[in-house]
Amino acid sequence: MEPYELSLAEASAAIEDRRLSPVELTDSVLARIEAVDADVSAYVTVVAGAARAQAAEAARDIAAGRRRGPLHGVPMALKDLIDTAGTRTASGSAVRAGRTPAADSAVAARLKEAGAVLVGKAHTHEFAYGLTTPQTRNPWHLDHVPGGSSGGSAAAVASGTATYSLGTDTGGSIRVPSALTGVVGLKPTYGLVPRDGIASLSWSLDHVGPITRTVRDAGLVLDALVGRHPGDAAGHPYAAYASRPEEGLAGVRIGVPATYYFDHVDPQVEAAVREAIADLADLGARLVDVEIPMGEYVRATQWGLMVPEATAYHEQHLHTTPELYGPDVRVLLEAGALVPATDYLRAQRVRTLMRDGWNELLREVDVVAAPTVPATAARRDQETFRWADGTVETVSDAYVRLSAPANITGLPALSVPAGFDTAGLPVGLQLIGRPLDEETVLRVGEAHERLRGPAPLAPYPFRPSGAPAPGSPDATPQADPRH
Amino acid sequence: MEPYELSLAEASAAIEDRRLSPVELTDSVLARIEAVDADVSAYVTVVAGAARAQAAEAARDIAAGRRRGPLHGVPMALKDLIDTAGTRTASGSAVRAGRTPAADSAVAARLKEAGAVLVGKAHTHEFAYGLTTPQTRNPWHLDHVPGGSSGGSAAAVASGTATYSLGTDTGGSIRVPSALTGVVGLKPTYGLVPRDGIASLSWSLDHVGPITRTVRDAGLVLDALVGRHPGDAAGHPYAAYASRPEEGLAGVRIGVPATYYFDHVDPQVEAAVREAIADLADLGARLVDVEIPMGEYVRATQWGLMVPEATAYHEQHLHTTPELYGPDVRVLLEAGALVPATDYLRAQRVRTLMRDGWNELLREVDVVAAPTVPATAARRDQETFRWADGTVETVSDAYVRLSAPANITGLPALSVPAGFDTAGLPVGLQLIGRPLDEETVLRVGEAHERLRGPAPLAPYPFRPSGAPAPGSPDATPQADPRH
Repeated sequence: MEPYELSLAEASAAIEDRRLSPVELTDSVLARIEAVDADVSAYVTVVAGAARAQAAEAARDIAAGRRRGPLHGVPMALKDLIDTAGTRTASGSAVRAGRTPAADSAVAARLKEAGAVLVGKAHTHEFAYGLTTPQTRNPWHLDHVPGGSSGGSAAAVASGTATYSLGTDTGGSIRVPSALTGVVGLKPTYGLVPRDGIASLSWSLDHVGPITRTVRDAGLVLDALVGRHPGDAAGHPYAAYASRPEEGLAGVRIGVPATYYFDHVDPQVEAAVREAIADLADLGARLVDVEIPMGEYVRATQWGLMVPEATAYHEQHLHTTPELYGPDVRVLLEAGALVPATDYLRAQRVRTLMRDGWNELLREVDVVAAPTVPATAARRDQETFRWADGTVETVSDAYVRLSAPANITGLPALSVPAGFDTAGLPVGLQLIGRPLDEETVLRVGEAHERLRGPAPLAPYPFRPSGAPAPGSPDATPQADPRH
Repeated sequence: MEPYELSLAEASAAIEDRRLSPVELTDSVLARIEAVDADVSAYVTVVAGAARAQAAEAARDIAAGRRRGPLHGVPMALKDLIDTAGTRTASGSAVRAGRTPAADSAVAARLKEAGAVLVGKAHTHEFAYGLTTPQTRNPWHLDHVPGGSSGGSAAAVASGTATYSLGTDTGGSIRVPSALTGVVGLKPTYGLVPRDGIASLSWSLDHVGPITRTVRDAGLVLDALVGRHPGDAAGHPYAAYASRPEEGLAGVRIGVPATYYFDHVDPQVEAAVREAIADLADLGARLVDVEIPMGEYVRATQWGLMVPEATAYHEQHLHTTPELYGPDVRVLLEAGALVPATDYLRAQRVRTLMRDGWNELLREVDVVAAPTVPATAARRDQETFRWADGTVETVSDAYVRLSAPANITGLPALSVPAGFDTAGLPVGLQLIGRPLDEETVLRVGEAHERLRGPAPLAPYPFRPSGAPAPGSPDATPQADPRH
């Protein structure tokens, strides 16, 4: 097994035991980037020299007995809209071309303090305003999108070019690409992780969080982001909540949506998710049918909040250099100027009622289990999904639909891999919990992962255009597996 | 002295000592209403029978040793947009004509629990959306407005037809009429007093609070509204903060605005307020010149928040029964539908900066002292003020100008009487304090009041149309005293 294949916890344990040096690990990851990122294009910027220097410094510190914790000496990637002092951060946009921040964002500073090694900046859909990340390809099938907007961050973790990464999530942008590339993505509770130094898409919906290979890894990164110390049990480390194999899921009540989350969902996705939920029951959880509150308002509320907030953030550049935005983002930003304040306020009022409804629901159950996205990765040229009843939905609308409720309400939500469809594309299981109860969400996610085994890296060489899905029962490539 | 002339504290002490019965007091107030409210028109609804029954019940309870506290058996008025179970509450609007709520608002319930006697509902500018309260006249001069939107509540207290009252304040609607009718008005910190059961004008700016004859009375009512018990020192009653004559104002730092609050202010108002500030220095306070942050943004921010929030609240009725709104309110509500969400969001962002600026300023001083309104009461037919430099300002803009900063920031603000202009119209001194530091605001207000004596009731018979101001150096009526 090559070092780049290790999970964060595995790499961290090997470094602690001196079986692995941060330099060796970083070199392995950099070599992997050399080998595969021309295909995947997860990175917009790779800082190989700086990464090697940081790794060497970590190696010296650790050798001298000054190991800072589980992130020390482990390479990672940051989404390109997360500021890094001295490293280009352009938010995937010509508007910020060549921009190099003087200061770290709050999360970059915390990871630096934890001894993390920055390998590079990962592609984002321009200013995080889209669900596909067109610069990047899905390592499970290069003809398919990795999802977005943190598509580069997820594709890096899925293809072995970063041990973990950070993404941001305004309508699903951590969870959607995590689900579509078969990795773990956590959107923490609104406000838990600071957003200073991160380009805003929609400040009342924006979150930043980890993308990792395992649920335990997500806990380790979250610990560093919020300043909990995994070595100190009194600090209630998140990583510890994600590893109580002895307990199973006895006493945990899992809400199974009777409404909303299984409407207009690909049958293969539904089957995989329902199987995962059945597994949770086998582990001792009690399944409870639940009605999702105000599902019919999710779309209007998400867009009603996001569109004007995004335009307000970009107002100045929209006046001075509108031509620097990509056409898809520019049209959304210009549309935002036309939204009446009363529509925005209506969305805010609906949000309050929706949050009340979810809080009510989460008195009956501990987490809600559902699909992360209603379909697996779309083809790069695909614009819509057509559902069984003939309804047509844009890819963006479909990808936001099941993740947006946790953005509107601010609830913590985790996506964990839950198998593959017959085309060999990953499916995601979403677990949504109570405010600030990341613990239970991680605990349930890890119980599922322990049963299934951690998600594999995408096998290399990657499947190119038109290649069949290896090992899938139906290896014939389909125009759209949902037709 | 007639019972209706007593302050709340005086009436309360007399009731406690069995020198006065709640029935006698209530009868005196009801007789005063009979005598003078045809002139003033402070009340839209008087509930004489219910008030007498409540007073009789209070008298029995108190005689039986079950006195609940200082509000027990004392008559008061509530602004017509504050819900009262079983008593008509129409928010001064045909849209709610004949509406009788089934339940009390939170504040009405708390006053009821404290044994307060509801005498009636006071006129409000329609849905609180205006600064003049055209239904009501200023008891100091019937040709002048009482201010608004709590014009009825203030005029009742000023004319002896309620011992105290409650108003609401979105851009100055407690403080403006209190200043213009020569009584005390307190806008508490945003969120301190619950607004449930009160028609909303603009939920991010709305406040409810007391209008009284003395500062101590304001403390007594606030104690009841927030559930502090004035008999229990451990409960930190507000009324106690408003009565420490031995302490003077030693150690208190008072900010004197070098910017904003004395721009476009009537010279007589400025002179009266500066004299009041000098008095505070004589009492031991230290005066500190302060720069008011972002004064040039106050108007755009106040209106940018208020106008769309008001329209959002009324959206449904605006579609179904627009003709039921008065023309001034309807045009504002319809204009609100045209405000872009980005303008609203800009106002919210400016608010954040303004709040930061004020919090910074309030590290240097304990309260800011300023005029409440830049001019005394306008004539009923007056639409604008013309300032010394030739600038013309609408009455509404002028009245909101100096009170809005405390609405935008949520800071507590008190208006106390500070003498009269040469036309015999009252001037108000405004004291603005730190969040939740009503204590210091009340302490400073009461020190000033103790020096000057409490404000007198408006003398009866009231000055009618064209009558000269009694006792004023310039008793010739002026078209506009500010010209």
